[in-house]
Amino acid sequence: MAGKTSTTKLSPVEEQEGQTQAAAVSPEDCPKGSQVPDFAHPADMADHLENLSLDKQVCALRNMPVEDAADALAELDEAVAVDVLENLGVEDAARIIAEMAPDDAADVLDDLDEKHRDAVLKRLDREDFEELRHLLNFDPDSAAGAMNTKVILLESAFSVDEAIAFMRGEMAEMENPYYAYVVDERDVLIGVLSVRDLMLARPGIIVGDAVAGQTVISVRYDANRREAAGLLSRYNFLALPVVDYEGHIMGVITYDDIMDIMDETASADMLGMVGADPEENVDTPWLESVRGRLPWLMINMVNSALSASVVYMFEGTIAQMAVLAVLMPMVANQAGNTGQQALAVMIRQLAVERFDHKKAWLAVLREAKIGVATGVFMAVATFFGAWVFTRDIRVGLVMGGALLCDMLLGAVAGGSIPLIFRALGRDPAHASSIFLTTITDGAGFFIFLGLATIVIF
Amino acid sequence: MAGKTSTTKLSPVEEQEGQTQAAAVSPEDCPKGSQVPDFAHPADMADHLENLSLDKQVCALRNMPVEDAADALAELDEAVAVDVLENLGVEDAARIIAEMAPDDAADVLDDLDEKHRDAVLKRLDREDFEELRHLLNFDPDSAAGAMNTKVILLESAFSVDEAIAFMRGEMAEMENPYYAYVVDERDVLIGVLSVRDLMLARPGIIVGDAVAGQTVISVRYDANRREAAGLLSRYNFLALPVVDYEGHIMGVITYDDIMDIMDETASADMLGMVGADPEENVDTPWLESVRGRLPWLMINMVNSALSASVVYMFEGTIAQMAVLAVLMPMVANQAGNTGQQALAVMIRQLAVERFDHKKAWLAVLREAKIGVATGVFMAVATFFGAWVFTRDIRVGLVMGGALLCDMLLGAVAGGSIPLIFRALGRDPAHASSIFLTTITDGAGFFIFLGLATIVIF
Repeated sequence: MAGKTSTTKLSPVEEQEGQTQAAAVSPEDCPKGSQVPDFAHPADMADHLENLSLDKQVCALRNMPVEDAADALAELDEAVAVDVLENLGVEDAARIIAEMAPDDAADVLDDLDEKHRDAVLKRLDREDFEELRHLLNFDPDSAAGAMNTKVILLESAFSVDEAIAFMRGEMAEMENPYYAYVVDERDVLIGVLSVRDLMLARPGIIVGDAVAGQTVISVRYDANRREAAGLLSRYNFLALPVVDYEGHIMGVITYDDIMDIMDETASADMLGMVGADPEENVDTPWLESVRGRLPWLMINMVNSALSASVVYMFEGTIAQMAVLAVLMPMVANQAGNTGQQALAVMIRQLAVERFDHKKAWLAVLREAKIGVATGVFMAVATFFGAWVFTRDIRVGLVMGGALLCDMLLGAVAGGSIPLIFRALGRDPAHASSIFLTTITDGAGFFIFLGLATIVIF
Repeated sequence: MAGKTSTTKLSPVEEQEGQTQAAAVSPEDCPKGSQVPDFAHPADMADHLENLSLDKQVCALRNMPVEDAADALAELDEAVAVDVLENLGVEDAARIIAEMAPDDAADVLDDLDEKHRDAVLKRLDREDFEELRHLLNFDPDSAAGAMNTKVILLESAFSVDEAIAFMRGEMAEMENPYYAYVVDERDVLIGVLSVRDLMLARPGIIVGDAVAGQTVISVRYDANRREAAGLLSRYNFLALPVVDYEGHIMGVITYDDIMDIMDETASADMLGMVGADPEENVDTPWLESVRGRLPWLMINMVNSALSASVVYMFEGTIAQMAVLAVLMPMVANQAGNTGQQALAVMIRQLAVERFDHKKAWLAVLREAKIGVATGVFMAVATFFGAWVFTRDIRVGLVMGGALLCDMLLGAVAGGSIPLIFRALGRDPAHASSIFLTTITDGAGFFIFLGLATIVIF
């Protein structure tokens, strides 16, 4: 034997037996011979399916070849996939699940309710059953939750020629046969060889020698899958090995999964920043979104009540000079925008790059400089604007001075909040915008009204 | 001949000749034999270099093997790469550029000032020179600007066995030899075969027959490179062919470039939303950031002056009851947050999915429902809060009523703005947050103070 694949293998497709217990849409409901249009790619098929009613989705999947159904299911939005599986009947569902790549199958099964999931799992053959049970044990957000367990393993004693012959044999079975992983006698991962490396290697050389001195980049199975995505993107690999604490290879995460994770990460940053659920999208049931957003709106309300209490302190000042209430929100709004620009730059930077301590604080300093420069510019403009508008140079001075201070504060706060959140072990993006606005509003009102009280009265 | 590669090929490395004209850091300034630590991957090397001073960066690149220098340069942040190249001297710069993949080389040269670029190009051999001149003609943001021109082309008349032999021969030369592209006698792209397809194909079959009936997914050379990234991510390809208007293949965009483009796209959405330059990062010179952000801060100021003018209309009301100035910003702030949640969901959705008309407006409806539900909840809470606080039930009614209306408006505006921007041919994200805040502030002040004038006075 020139190598080994991990034990998990999809079984051959079983013939449809017509037993569709518990199918909410029974096969009799499906029009006979209804044809689904041909698509060049499962992603297009999935788009087509997503526009159909649930009944038609179920019938379409039932009528198409099981390989196509499996491919389409893997591309469907997860909420849709779950609905379809629950209405397909356990037999049909199991038939399609068995045909899917184990990592995709585990993703879908993860979202299925437990009763349905167990019913489907029981219908699988023993190998598939154990494989999926194994995968479902892992946190879906971990590297292990995204990994594929079908891996080409080479023992270090084999020759390159044996390895090539072995890989050719495995090609038909494997989804992404780009790398072979070399393990030592204790099954610890010691090297990686691409198809290209193998083809270019000197014939007769031993695999263990071909990888001698390699530093294998891998991810631990319990790391967050975003960390895995970051590594894959950083090193431009096609696949990243997932290892346990002893360095044994457990599976690989492939580039196709990473692109989805990267999209999710970008969404999570943007949604999290304003206090929406990081995984929300337009297909999320609206009541679920209400539940997700309401806590942050409440926190935002408490925060803005704090800012309002600052205004309340100066109620007397405003009663004497109501024009202050006109100008006051402009200061806060402008500083808020300045801070959000800094915030966005910093959050994205933390998302795509490793950041040491020194670079982080240099970046905050950079934001401070930008805050001063834009602040001086806007302060001069608003000084004249407020002076002309109120015909009172003192109001102009208060407006300009408060704006400059608050914009500088906004820039520094926007630059620092993600770093502080991260230092506290929190997501750098989450609800950052809400906290930023509290600072720029509260401080903006205080500085503006405080200055006004001193300068004008 | 079983196939052909496109004419462009990197020349063998020329020996360093010691002529380093115009090198700002001359070779004599570099300590002899100074060693750069070994890194497992160019991305790590690039990180190490980015933490050095410019002098040390230049010396390190000059002292390391030219292949390593080329790999590291490709991974460096573009601003750093440009600085280094300008100080490296034309000969050394050309030597490293010649060793880079043409698409990476073109990216770096694109940012170099024209004089330096021409000087470097002139030092290249004829093939490299013409190749890079060709690539530099394309818009860096287009698909062609990101493509690699080294492609394995197969004529449709060849057999699979000839194709395999040809591909093995090309492997040493190619960066990513995963697909071979099949062209007809007019050189029009008619099919794609992966290494795996070729390995699994029946021996003796003709390449043209192996791809018969294929629908090749490709991108036109003048499409935006984000569109190319979207296709590659959607279909999970390793490479996407770039074609001209007649369907001739011009090059391929590979998955490693796409991951960078996806990161850029995510950043552009988030930064654009708040009016920062979509390409800004913490390495952008701060004065450049000031120039980029200032116009949007000015627009924000004009917008917030519009909101302030609404408050000014009600100056009399505020003078009579200053507590209104205390509560007013809370309404605007809360509606702004509601709107930003809707905005973020919609922008991300537009970034990752194709959206038809119907689905778009259903999504806005969904946001409206969320706005009403969260609005009713917050309105009831603030009704009691304001009533207790001011001991005036009328203030509570005004506060609750205004908050509900403004939150609904914020939700609808946040959901619609990206769609409206897109319909107008604009970037859905760009400055969306600024326009949203104008709406929620202006309407919030108007509804709150208007209701107060009616109900209380």
